[in-house]
Amino acid sequence: MTTNSYARPSGRAHDELRQVRITRNFTIHAEGSVLVEFGNTKVLCTASVDEKVPPFRRGSGEGWVTAEYGMLPRSTHTRSDREAAKGKQSGRTQEIQRLIGRALRAVFDLEALGERTIVLDCDVLQADGGTRTAAITGAFVAAQDAVNGLLREFKVSRNPIREPVAAVSVGMVEGTPLLDLEYLEDSACDTDMNVVMTGAGKFIEVQGTAEGQPFSREQLDTMLELAQKGILALQDKQREALAG
Amino acid sequence: MTTNSYARPSGRAHDELRQVRITRNFTIHAEGSVLVEFGNTKVLCTASVDEKVPPFRRGSGEGWVTAEYGMLPRSTHTRSDREAAKGKQSGRTQEIQRLIGRALRAVFDLEALGERTIVLDCDVLQADGGTRTAAITGAFVAAQDAVNGLLREFKVSRNPIREPVAAVSVGMVEGTPLLDLEYLEDSACDTDMNVVMTGAGKFIEVQGTAEGQPFSREQLDTMLELAQKGILALQDKQREALAG
Amino acid sequence: MTTNSYARPSGRAHDELRQVRITRNFTIHAEGSVLVEFGNTKVLCTASVDEKVPPFRRGSGEGWVTAEYGMLPRSTHTRSDREAAKGKQSGRTQEIQRLIGRALRAVFDLEALGERTIVLDCDVLQADGGTRTAAITGAFVAAQDAVNGLLREFKVSRNPIREPVAAVSVGMVEGTPLLDLEYLEDSACDTDMNVVMTGAGKFIEVQGTAEGQPFSREQLDTMLELAQKGILALQDKQREALAG
Amino acid sequence: MTTNSYARPSGRAHDELRQVRITRNFTIHAEGSVLVEFGNTKVLCTASVDEKVPPFRRGSGEGWVTAEYGMLPRSTHTRSDREAAKGKQSGRTQEIQRLIGRALRAVFDLEALGERTIVLDCDVLQADGGTRTAAITGAFVAAQDAVNGLLREFKVSRNPIREPVAAVSVGMVEGTPLLDLEYLEDSACDTDMNVVMTGAGKFIEVQGTAEGQPFSREQLDTMLELAQKGILALQDKQREALAG
Amino acid sequence: MTTNSYARPSGRAHDELRQVRITRNFTIHAEGSVLVEFGNTKVLCTASVDEKVPPFRRGSGEGWVTAEYGMLPRSTHTRSDREAAKGKQSGRTQEIQRLIGRALRAVFDLEALGERTIVLDCDVLQADGGTRTAAITGAFVAAQDAVNGLLREFKVSRNPIREPVAAVSVGMVEGTPLLDLEYLEDSACDTDMNVVMTGAGKFIEVQGTAEGQPFSREQLDTMLELAQKGILALQDKQREALAG
Amino acid sequence: MTTNSYARPSGRAHDELRQVRITRNFTIHAEGSVLVEFGNTKVLCTASVDEKVPPFRRGSGEGWVTAEYGMLPRSTHTRSDREAAKGKQSGRTQEIQRLIGRALRAVFDLEALGERTIVLDCDVLQADGGTRTAAITGAFVAAQDAVNGLLREFKVSRNPIREPVAAVSVGMVEGTPLLDLEYLEDSACDTDMNVVMTGAGKFIEVQGTAEGQPFSREQLDTMLELAQKGILALQDKQREALAG
Repeated sequence: MTTNSYARPSGRAHDELRQVRITRNFTIHAEGSVLVEFGNTKVLCTASVDEKVPPFRRGSGEGWVTAEYGMLPRSTHTRSDREAAKGKQSGRTQEIQRLIGRALRAVFDLEALGERTIVLDCDVLQADGGTRTAAITGAFVAAQDAVNGLLREFKVSRNPIREPVAAVSVGMVEGTPLLDLEYLEDSACDTDMNVVMTGAGKFIEVQGTAEGQPFSREQLDTMLELAQKGILALQDKQREALAG
Repeated sequence: MTTNSYARPSGRAHDELRQVRITRNFTIHAEGSVLVEFGNTKVLCTASVDEKVPPFRRGSGEGWVTAEYGMLPRSTHTRSDREAAKGKQSGRTQEIQRLIGRALRAVFDLEALGERTIVLDCDVLQADGGTRTAAITGAFVAAQDAVNGLLREFKVSRNPIREPVAAVSVGMVEGTPLLDLEYLEDSACDTDMNVVMTGAGKFIEVQGTAEGQPFSREQLDTMLELAQKGILALQDKQREALAG
Repeated sequence: MTTNSYARPSGRAHDELRQVRITRNFTIHAEGSVLVEFGNTKVLCTASVDEKVPPFRRGSGEGWVTAEYGMLPRSTHTRSDREAAKGKQSGRTQEIQRLIGRALRAVFDLEALGERTIVLDCDVLQADGGTRTAAITGAFVAAQDAVNGLLREFKVSRNPIREPVAAVSVGMVEGTPLLDLEYLEDSACDTDMNVVMTGAGKFIEVQGTAEGQPFSREQLDTMLELAQKGILALQDKQREALAG
Repeated sequence: MTTNSYARPSGRAHDELRQVRITRNFTIHAEGSVLVEFGNTKVLCTASVDEKVPPFRRGSGEGWVTAEYGMLPRSTHTRSDREAAKGKQSGRTQEIQRLIGRALRAVFDLEALGERTIVLDCDVLQADGGTRTAAITGAFVAAQDAVNGLLREFKVSRNPIREPVAAVSVGMVEGTPLLDLEYLEDSACDTDMNVVMTGAGKFIEVQGTAEGQPFSREQLDTMLELAQKGILALQDKQREALAG
Repeated sequence: MTTNSYARPSGRAHDELRQVRITRNFTIHAEGSVLVEFGNTKVLCTASVDEKVPPFRRGSGEGWVTAEYGMLPRSTHTRSDREAAKGKQSGRTQEIQRLIGRALRAVFDLEALGERTIVLDCDVLQADGGTRTAAITGAFVAAQDAVNGLLREFKVSRNPIREPVAAVSVGMVEGTPLLDLEYLEDSACDTDMNVVMTGAGKFIEVQGTAEGQPFSREQLDTMLELAQKGILALQDKQREALAG
Repeated sequence: MTTNSYARPSGRAHDELRQVRITRNFTIHAEGSVLVEFGNTKVLCTASVDEKVPPFRRGSGEGWVTAEYGMLPRSTHTRSDREAAKGKQSGRTQEIQRLIGRALRAVFDLEALGERTIVLDCDVLQADGGTRTAAITGAFVAAQDAVNGLLREFKVSRNPIREPVAAVSVGMVEGTPLLDLEYLEDSACDTDMNVVMTGAGKFIEVQGTAEGQPFSREQLDTMLELAQKGILALQDKQREALAG
């Protein structure tokens, strides 16, 4: 990989994350409540502990982790219809919340969690690309806060979270590989890839989609390397926030 | 009426509002975007301008003002199911958004607005009682910001907002009339009343409900006076915010 | 209050109810079945006793009272779409049935009722304004008939209804306060207010809405006095019907 | 056919209709409004004229006739859930309203009707078996009233109704053929058959269902003869009502 | 009945079935799986055994038989919208699946079946008229295969199927009675009748509908005789298939 | 990659596809109709040409390609509820049909297609893992058949399909990389990856999910190579089918 001809609207380097901020205790009722910002993308992630499990888990001794995702109607450039008013969640919404749920579940030891559910609600207050990767990154911190509460209250005897998880988007825009796409870049890109990784540097999800030109194996490799770099930086941000 | 035997959890006087904060430009995409806080109640109110009107208004030369309301699942003490996932809005949600819409419409000159719609989205980030009155109070400021944009762009030639509007709740708790109920007070009250008033001191809505004991005419009068006092203070806050 | 410049289409005095008829045992299956007529407004109110309570009441030893409301598609001047065919109840329908439920619940001693539910179905056969107030007024009589059955069968040992409840609309039309608005008046009014009162003359609900001009405190007082007068007359009609 | 061993709860002869009453102008807004009573079964049938046709008819020069059916929740012995609240019409409801629509459409000259729709709303106020046959019989009278209005206003130049239509149920209960089943008989019957016939004595619909024992060809013939006899009597009632 | 002036598109005699094929074990997972073909109409009928019964049957010691019906979107000449995507089943779908369920239930001894459910799924792969009659005819064979499995596994001690059941359509097209209508004939017919009969030659369902001209008693008789003849032939096909 | 310790239930080599069959013209009405079989997985893929485009494409001069996916209720080991009866499509269904749509759209020149839509319906008749990859592979052949029809009828002047597309699943089961997972393997796998590639060997979609253990970069590389090998073989099958 050599040329990086595409000039990013923000002036960022092609392998540079947006400014990332993770604010804990953003609201008061949830067991974990995090506002995560990837530049202008702002997602409120709450973790709620429910002392029940879904029917398919009852009596198993194991817990469950699930996620829901939503966008406020005017979180976007033009107003989107409210899904509650339309009476159903779009395919996109369902796809994203299934992704967030799988990503978080992958780092949980559900037996250690015990028969309870952690529900992660990720609501986009302001969107500028990368809402699903910001959501996963923030939901991990909210989940950790909720789990810390369970540990403090002796409801669980060992930490049910095995390792951190974070996510980032990468893409090819006009032949240039870019890290952490913002909305304008996302609209223009040929390939959009979302990568979810653990703290140990292994993959939980790799989802690459050619929006324009199909991508070669070489481009795939380049994007995976960019993603790995970005996720390491995001995990530093998560650690700082949890230490703060 | 003299005695105020009920001690408010917050230590507030019976006729004292919670701390009110109105933050404009809270998000970047909407034509008006206001975070309104009545103590721990936080509602994000956005005003979106849509250059269309609903079918029943087409060709009338007049505009429309409407509102939608939602609560984030974990804005409350215990998590509520997401309405988009349930596939319908509750009766309570519909009642509140109809109220907000009527309240705002009442101060608009729809002819001056022209054939366009202002949609007010009021989404509760954190709930502690009085979400509908906070929403009306904040939505007015968001609507004014959106209208100011229309004036600046010469899309409307005169201000389509005739006067300010704000709202507050009042109630009777253990015989004591209280202004601006927070959640604990709301749960305990015999009567819960929401009052919407114009800047000129007239009523747009009066909705009083006996949750426990029916209320007398004398109690009604007392509550209306408290409400009027509170709304005058809220309109000062609105003015300050718009001047800021 | 002095001037009454507005001439009512029906020739009624401004403080005169329409002809009110309450017909008990209108249909045969329900425990209480009442046709209530406020002039041309005709609502069939049935009270059904269900020996179960909703989940949130189970094991409480207390009963529940709830209401549903509907309009036949051609109860109105022009045909309205059938809500069952559209697949959802409108916000207006939900708002009205919540109001009826609260109004009736307010006069019930739910502990004396025991763990059973009374469902009040209010279906408008013909509409000419004031369907919700007629529904409350008729539902009370149907509920009393159902309760009388429970008493006769020794299912309850004391009357769970504490006092009567009735409702009426009032409004300001062209500056004139009017009692018991019919459709033409309702369409023309500046303020529409629904008032629900107990037999002891206290308020259960006061819902005033400025449809046109906001209303002053003086106008509010005038309307409340008109409403109180009308409700006393309606309670006489209820007593006569139950004695009949 | 010889023996008629089954004694009907009402004491009716096996080939005797219940008391039939057809009351026109039962409500005031609809172009046709008929209360039809087959004994304790009471159905309100309204005919509404809509000066539009469904999309698949637009520009055809022809009209449309359609029907909707509903039961009030407490029209039955035990309360049924309200379909508007459940958010969908049951299969039974849809089957019945499709039947009513086909039956009425069969006697209409849709070209003579012109590009308008007649909507027949059949709402059961009280049910005791035979609601669909009563509905068809009453809907015809309501449709005729609506058509008479169109003729009087010169909106149609010739009568778009070619001939009358009426319907009745027949069944086999304990080996006895019965005309016009009431609820108790309907629950006990081996075969339930609904027959729709024109004034000229021809069939529009024959729907026979073995609920218990399958039925022989001989039993089918017997039931068809009973039905024919009953429908002739019903058409007399329709004529009387329209002449009244 | 004399003249048979109408020439069938396929060249079939007026009383001739289309080529009927019944293929068992068409798919591998279901307890019974049958592809039934009436000429170009192809329906996949599966019978699934569920060791539960619906709530209204629990504890009765009796089983249940039910059916669901669907059409693949492009089983028809022009593509139909997918019902799962539209969010509801059409009235036609519900009417047909209720018919199939009643037809199969009529030949079952539900006590001998025991507290379990047989679900018959009839999915149209290709439609050319007569899908509901083909579905009933094929569902019987699938149900028999499922029951044979229960007998082999000693889950039932005697055959819960009392006798075979099959179905066929008949109609009047341009005055000619026709057996087993294909799509072109169905579109052109004055009367369309579906007949369901048992192996013993008795009727389970007779559903005749005048689509154009009402039909006389004589025409009805002719159609019933045609149907009986066709059903005898279909029952031979069922026997052959089950013997094969 | 060395060891292949996991013995596949089918006895296949770890890099061996199941038997693949592609049957064109499986049904008669659709412009393209293909039954695709990957071993026991059988999916009916139809391509329907609609001479309209969705609203967001109107007037653009460009066409659209979209997909819908469904499973027959008893295509699976145990019966699944019918989505049409439940009233909504699951998140999984929506995710899969969005994937199929994107995959096919990626090889289409929508301008050459002109303002028309190709709808690909992929209905699973029998499921044994890999339904989405079989669907994409079969849908391409159905789409090509539909396009060939448009070319023959001179509705399009040049082939709007730029290159073939096919898809296959790969996974890690007990440390062994496997090509084309069947149901038992899919349930047991640690990682499940679906890969969509063009004829030119480039990627359209890469979707890898850790169901159990997260996967390393080395494992990802191994799986991508397996997938590429499988897809080349599938494209041979597609060519053969289209040549046949």
